[in-house]
Amino acid sequence: MQKKGIILSGMRPTGAMHLGNYFGALENWIRLQDEYECYYFVADWHALTTGYEDTSEYKSNITNLLVDWLSAGLDHNKCVLFVQSAIKEHAELHLLFSMNVPLSWLYRCPTYKDQLNQLKEKNIATYGFLGYPCLQAADILAYKADFVPVGEDQLPHLEITREIARRFNFLYKCEVFPEPQPLLTKAKVLPGLDGRKMSKSYNNTIALADSPDVVQKKIMTMITDPARIHKTDPGHPEVCSVYAYHQLFTADEVPEIESACRKGEIGCVACKKKLAQNVTRFTTPIWERRQEWLKRPDDIRDIISKGCSKAREKASETMSDVRKAMQIDWI
Amino acid sequence: MQKKGIILSGMRPTGAMHLGNYFGALENWIRLQDEYECYYFVADWHALTTGYEDTSEYKSNITNLLVDWLSAGLDHNKCVLFVQSAIKEHAELHLLFSMNVPLSWLYRCPTYKDQLNQLKEKNIATYGFLGYPCLQAADILAYKADFVPVGEDQLPHLEITREIARRFNFLYKCEVFPEPQPLLTKAKVLPGLDGRKMSKSYNNTIALADSPDVVQKKIMTMITDPARIHKTDPGHPEVCSVYAYHQLFTADEVPEIESACRKGEIGCVACKKKLAQNVTRFTTPIWERRQEWLKRPDDIRDIISKGCSKAREKASETMSDVRKAMQIDWI
Repeated sequence: MQKKGIILSGMRPTGAMHLGNYFGALENWIRLQDEYECYYFVADWHALTTGYEDTSEYKSNITNLLVDWLSAGLDHNKCVLFVQSAIKEHAELHLLFSMNVPLSWLYRCPTYKDQLNQLKEKNIATYGFLGYPCLQAADILAYKADFVPVGEDQLPHLEITREIARRFNFLYKCEVFPEPQPLLTKAKVLPGLDGRKMSKSYNNTIALADSPDVVQKKIMTMITDPARIHKTDPGHPEVCSVYAYHQLFTADEVPEIESACRKGEIGCVACKKKLAQNVTRFTTPIWERRQEWLKRPDDIRDIISKGCSKAREKASETMSDVRKAMQIDWI
Repeated sequence: MQKKGIILSGMRPTGAMHLGNYFGALENWIRLQDEYECYYFVADWHALTTGYEDTSEYKSNITNLLVDWLSAGLDHNKCVLFVQSAIKEHAELHLLFSMNVPLSWLYRCPTYKDQLNQLKEKNIATYGFLGYPCLQAADILAYKADFVPVGEDQLPHLEITREIARRFNFLYKCEVFPEPQPLLTKAKVLPGLDGRKMSKSYNNTIALADSPDVVQKKIMTMITDPARIHKTDPGHPEVCSVYAYHQLFTADEVPEIESACRKGEIGCVACKKKLAQNVTRFTTPIWERRQEWLKRPDDIRDIISKGCSKAREKASETMSDVRKAMQIDWI
């Protein structure tokens, strides 16, 4: 099949993937791998921008992320899976871009000051944290990506990448880089078990690595409508996380569930049991594949090693073009 | 012979080397190659920090610099000669350092604001120009250099390298990097033909690439004591560039020359002729070797290619240590 263009996207290896991550990004990646030439990478250097002080879980996080990807349905025969730090071309292109990227572009990036404030407990007033969009541009442009799947909040970052591409082409009178377009996707939002955003730091996640038992138990502890004391009390699905989950996992029966809840015809425990059944129907096959992949660490290394080779080949072609355009191809 | 430690030093390929550069640095490099394990590199990435807008002479400048080095007496059998951009480890280490180098260290570097002001015509308020000391630290520490030959004005840069080494060792509880010590050398200062600092931008240089004829002609145009109209007028050697040159090139006869000048016993033309003889006695062998090297571009590439291999081997050993200490050696 003729693919529609090159896509690049990455995830930081910051711990076990959860269902929020799955519906927020990975589901989309899995869909895109059939239509586009996709390069998906573990953004391990990016993880250092905010996590350089404690790298003790760095390696296990990378392995776990790869296992999550493969188990959830990324197919290494359809897309290129690789680890950023294995492709030194990212570092070289980042360095070359750094020479002509105005500091003002980086300081003006809307997320920069936000994050500095949010992550006050971390010591991230560093050179590399400021330069994060420059590294991201190198990631994307090393593969001459046509599209980058992003949420609306990430549009400013992609705009910097587009500016860097334009500036390079202008300075060196060339057409080396495309201006990657955003591929805006309305990701499904799955709240955490307590109704807040699903996040490891809130301890309210269902991880892809959770066994069916654990998933079931977690769902049974979910917070429902606090105004409902007896199971015959009328419920308010709009404030109930279980109901929010049903919309993703029990889509066909949502009207019936809503009606039964409002009339007090179904109790929260029964409602959760139904949900647990449907969620585990979804998560169990992923979990089972996880168990299989975990027994095959050598195969995973092999898959990633092949992915890295493909990525390196593409990135090093780009670097040849870059050096030639800059007239710095002495070697 | 047991060498006294590892030295690293680099020069930017910004055009033909002149005698000011020779006495300011290269003479010292040549001396050091016998005593130390020396890594000398063409700092071509550094040249981009201030020269990214016009790279048209980048490649010829690199070749010329290498020809200058070899002709002046750097011996590729005694030291490792290489080109920075061929060693991707510099870019990787630079990226890793960037993650933990505080922005304040870079802004506080005394030369940063000076240079921003001095090079106002250039657009260097860039990310990479700010990060220059971080790249320099990567250059030096990739070889675990014990010593760096510097002038007093460069001590603050080396201090940042030492801070970066200390911070890395502290953060990752290791002893990967030494703290490189300055090797302060009183470089001989040779003024330009007009008495100002010798500099290409003043058009007052004697280049190593100048033929004996050109050197001779340049010396005959040198500015001497402006108060001396007739050759019998008493001269003032302290304001005369020719006299400054005699101190380097006619060291044995300086007292006689001074005395004859003050007494009006030697005219400026005769004095310059004597100087031209001595300068060309020094420059002609270099110039002749230059002509030979220029006929052997393949040999030069071969020499540098071997130098790059040696440098890469050393730098990649260091990078293994770095990744291991950071616990990021997934690959």
